[in-house]
Amino acid sequence: MSYQLHYWPSIQGRGEFVRLALEAAGAPYVDVARGDAASGQGLPALFHYLQDESVARPPFACPVLVDGKQVIGQTAAILLYLGPRLKLVGASEADRLWTHQIQLTIADAVDEAHNTHHPVGAGLYYEEQKMEAARAAKEFRTQRIPKFLGWLEAVLARNPKGDRHLVGARLSYADLSLFQLVAGLLYAFPKATKRALKKTPLVLALHERVAQQARVSAYLRSERRIAFNEDGIFRRYPELDA
Amino acid sequence: MSYQLHYWPSIQGRGEFVRLALEAAGAPYVDVARGDAASGQGLPALFHYLQDESVARPPFACPVLVDGKQVIGQTAAILLYLGPRLKLVGASEADRLWTHQIQLTIADAVDEAHNTHHPVGAGLYYEEQKMEAARAAKEFRTQRIPKFLGWLEAVLARNPKGDRHLVGARLSYADLSLFQLVAGLLYAFPKATKRALKKTPLVLALHERVAQQARVSAYLRSERRIAFNEDGIFRRYPELDA
Repeated sequence: MSYQLHYWPSIQGRGEFVRLALEAAGAPYVDVARGDAASGQGLPALFHYLQDESVARPPFACPVLVDGKQVIGQTAAILLYLGPRLKLVGASEADRLWTHQIQLTIADAVDEAHNTHHPVGAGLYYEEQKMEAARAAKEFRTQRIPKFLGWLEAVLARNPKGDRHLVGARLSYADLSLFQLVAGLLYAFPKATKRALKKTPLVLALHERVAQQARVSAYLRSERRIAFNEDGIFRRYPELDA
Repeated sequence: MSYQLHYWPSIQGRGEFVRLALEAAGAPYVDVARGDAASGQGLPALFHYLQDESVARPPFACPVLVDGKQVIGQTAAILLYLGPRLKLVGASEADRLWTHQIQLTIADAVDEAHNTHHPVGAGLYYEEQKMEAARAAKEFRTQRIPKFLGWLEAVLARNPKGDRHLVGARLSYADLSLFQLVAGLLYAFPKATKRALKKTPLVLALHERVAQQARVSAYLRSERRIAFNEDGIFRRYPELDA
């Protein structure tokens, strides 16, 4: 049976971390909100899970993954669930926990990237918080991008199974999420990110290797990959880069 | 053997979610950074895990839990690990995932609470971002506190095992984290939080019940419970409440 992914249909957003896992594993899934409302898909199906009182375990926000009776919110929790099923995580509890810990740290970086254009709050438009955004972006560019990428570099360098993967010797969902984080940062902050990547060659190499994985590469060239845009988490506002 | 918790010694912070789980379960643990550096504890022991290149799987930040050879960062990952060991989570995969999903959502609320006094970035003092903080706090008070508490209220109301716990019919680490979130919000934003809690009676009742659990109650009255203060995540800046 197909997995059902529910996410906003016009942005990559946090849903992209789930899409990449499903795509890289060649798993059958339906991107429900991008389907037709007349056939039971589209946004009404997504709002059902977020708003309908009949949902016993309601997600706070999307992405939402539905697998039979199981309804799961929170990107990292979805990947925790999918990891073993898609063979995108090691078999030991220690490996699974470490992969999850890396995912949570990447999620923190993603939150902070979002915060650069919405430091006051997600309920207001960027245009209503541009002054605050300029200061937040400077802090993020100069302090946080190097710190997060530097940490990922250390994780790769110290992996006893080699520096081609974050955990063990095989592709994990954390590798896919590293790819997406770097792709997003390169889109939103090209100058700052290229500067930081010069000091993190292992991160850059893994980013490029993931993009060349056969299924990921096919996905990135397909219409299923939504282009980065200024409604998503990673937004290119040139005034915020330097 | 005792668990080792490594966290900043003068604030509750994110470490408090781990402390509460250990305390509520009556688990043996050492709050290492509050110990004496001369005896191998104190901040040097914490910095070892954050900075020493010999740590194969380095946490990005604290809290860090050490259990024998296992070193775990990220609050939610630590609770994922401790939950079954401390009997603070159900036995089924579905219950464990749902408890974790609630924890991750509470963590998001905690991040947003921190953002109210540091919207520009954690690298600057509050005094350097007071104007931005005033706007961020207004958004958080009026939109986000009611939304997060309202979601927790719905989770309690829809629990098929009754509205005394977030998951199932027993205390879980998510209940403990709800207690801490509400305690923090009441400290930082007493006016706005009391207003929101009038609409979420189940959340308020669970908060009060957790505080009365025998071990939690003893902990809260002990010297081990650090008082809220203006170095932590939840800070009482009266100008940010209304």
